[in-house]
Amino acid sequence: MAARKKSARKKARKATPAASNQQASKLAREVRSQNERMDGVTVDVICATADGVYREIRKHAKPDLAFPVRSLKNVSYSQQRGYFEIGRQKKTRTLTVNTVKSFAQTLRMMGLSKELVENNDFATKRDAYYQSKNWEEARFDEQTESDAVMDDIEALFSVRGVSREQLRFVPDEHGGAVAGQLIVIDPDRETGEVERIDCTRFGSGAYSIPSSVEHLSFETDAAFVLAIETGGVFQRLQSHKFWQTANCILVSMAGVPTRATRRFIRKLSDQCKLPVYAFVDCDPYGISNIYRTLKVGSGNAAHLSQFFCVPQTRFLGVTPQDILDYELPTHPLLDVDVKRAKDALKNDPFFRAHKPWQKALEQLLKLGVRAEQQALAKWGLNYVIDEYLPRKLEQRDRFLP
Amino acid sequence: MAARKKSARKKARKATPAASNQQASKLAREVRSQNERMDGVTVDVICATADGVYREIRKHAKPDLAFPVRSLKNVSYSQQRGYFEIGRQKKTRTLTVNTVKSFAQTLRMMGLSKELVENNDFATKRDAYYQSKNWEEARFDEQTESDAVMDDIEALFSVRGVSREQLRFVPDEHGGAVAGQLIVIDPDRETGEVERIDCTRFGSGAYSIPSSVEHLSFETDAAFVLAIETGGVFQRLQSHKFWQTANCILVSMAGVPTRATRRFIRKLSDQCKLPVYAFVDCDPYGISNIYRTLKVGSGNAAHLSQFFCVPQTRFLGVTPQDILDYELPTHPLLDVDVKRAKDALKNDPFFRAHKPWQKALEQLLKLGVRAEQQALAKWGLNYVIDEYLPRKLEQRDRFLP
Repeated sequence: MAARKKSARKKARKATPAASNQQASKLAREVRSQNERMDGVTVDVICATADGVYREIRKHAKPDLAFPVRSLKNVSYSQQRGYFEIGRQKKTRTLTVNTVKSFAQTLRMMGLSKELVENNDFATKRDAYYQSKNWEEARFDEQTESDAVMDDIEALFSVRGVSREQLRFVPDEHGGAVAGQLIVIDPDRETGEVERIDCTRFGSGAYSIPSSVEHLSFETDAAFVLAIETGGVFQRLQSHKFWQTANCILVSMAGVPTRATRRFIRKLSDQCKLPVYAFVDCDPYGISNIYRTLKVGSGNAAHLSQFFCVPQTRFLGVTPQDILDYELPTHPLLDVDVKRAKDALKNDPFFRAHKPWQKALEQLLKLGVRAEQQALAKWGLNYVIDEYLPRKLEQRDRFLP
Repeated sequence: MAARKKSARKKARKATPAASNQQASKLAREVRSQNERMDGVTVDVICATADGVYREIRKHAKPDLAFPVRSLKNVSYSQQRGYFEIGRQKKTRTLTVNTVKSFAQTLRMMGLSKELVENNDFATKRDAYYQSKNWEEARFDEQTESDAVMDDIEALFSVRGVSREQLRFVPDEHGGAVAGQLIVIDPDRETGEVERIDCTRFGSGAYSIPSSVEHLSFETDAAFVLAIETGGVFQRLQSHKFWQTANCILVSMAGVPTRATRRFIRKLSDQCKLPVYAFVDCDPYGISNIYRTLKVGSGNAAHLSQFFCVPQTRFLGVTPQDILDYELPTHPLLDVDVKRAKDALKNDPFFRAHKPWQKALEQLLKLGVRAEQQALAKWGLNYVIDEYLPRKLEQRDRFLP
């Protein structure tokens, strides 16, 4: 594990230090042509699916569509792959008198996706719902219905390696904030002209991640990405330019990271071979909901994990052992915390696969307390910058998996 | 009203178009020296307050501190001032055997603020709570206690024109996202070196507002600021460069705008004499919680309104009349919506002061439905850009107050 990380760091350091606009354009062109290839695949898959239905109808047969079942029971976790994978269970929707409306809606939604790809545009779930209001008999009455159809289509195409973002369905949520040793390369959607966005040049502010990040590429010579739970700690590290002294990229997750934030970290980490370290509160929510979701995905959206999770993430802290080592102020675990931790130990394939995590969760339950990352402020507001993080970063092989 | 706005627009258009680094440095120096003057005032006010207590104790008298009462009942609204103002009711805390701990904590917290000003650092509420863990007998047991003390100190000093940010207490929340015709000037906290952040150069991403914006200044020749409720609409306008065609600055509020976002819009609007237009959902939450808070402040934090509210804001839409004019898809008003609207009509000094708002809320209640801003997607995903906003912006004098 340590060896893998070392070589990754080495590669990252070798990456083009202050690449010229020409290099940026070249990188952007590569991503663009990859995306165009992928757009071709997306349209092909949509057309092939629709074509299958059409041919069945012409044969006076009943066409059907088979969607992967989206639930924790249809999920597997392999350490090798590094993320939750959706299983083989399928639910089949056959075109009958009873299903004609939802069948038509599904096809119409696939048509919308094809249109969006062709116009290089995008739609949020809410956009798509309201768009349907002009689909006459195929319009949706409730957004929950159109959301479910979109989720089914996502799951259907994910099996063929097409992501939600490639279907041009984008989230409505805000993205996270980024600061540090990173240049984001963003080609204009119409002209293709490249914008090089230097994340060291935002003063006390930061770069806000867009809803969709598929078209982005990166230049960096940072050594790692630090993914931070709270806005307060992010602002402290950003204002004191921790990214400069530690040669890293700071990402503010603001709680459970949004899809755009996870996809951004994943693409960045993949392209630049950067390790990712998570710095979150020491409680079952920080460990299981935030860290686990970032690293391997979540149960009910396992069909997305292959695109969204960041398997190269490791857990910097705050660990249960830190509570003791740093004599942190704590709060008692709430019932919901205890339940969450016990659930994780019993049912979560990720924690069940990692002994060190089982020990850590058991230690947390035994301590009976939780600690926030800002608890380090007990030793001084900038103790986190001057002491805690440097000490931790000297022993990266001790990070939890 | 229309005349006032026109002249404001004219001034905005006249503003330095692409000011040089020299000009930026000059502007930043001005803000810096203003802030330094203000820091002097802050420290003076803190010292004078502490000194008063000290002298009373030396005289063997019982010192006391008088804090403004923070509640809707102690709030007034004048159209002239344009925001909720805190009234004259005070609660007095006298140093006795029973109050000695909270009295000491209040003084200690004022001392922390003085330290932060002197070191040009900052603390979130959580930071301050954990800092107190090293204050021995004066430490807080619960964060709610330290939050209340900080709120009291804020209210106490707000009466003397000192804001929370000047006390260096900053929020933990993320800031909003910004894109468009704006250059943010941000001097480095240590070197004073100026960073000019061009918000037209973020590609599909955006500028993320920092927790504290006191040190920022601006260059712009935009005609107005458009404050947007949802991330989805912001991303659409940003990706299609609406800020270019409409010559404006886009701000994503992502629901009720955070303090940092409100303060940012206020400073920007004040410094550059820019009108602000709000574009939110047509429901009592969008109108009362989001728009009203942005424009005049909120009841329980009226002591902050003078710093945070943006009285120059007007309401672009979505209006109840738009639901009819644009045949928007709607949802029925929920009980909580009806209650909120009736409350606003009956108890809210802002809506009671503005006849057009009373009519609009009554129309909404009569229609019995609400509409989201994305409902415009019924007419096409980019209808909002191609039709709705241009039409609205042609008749700015019709915007609700």
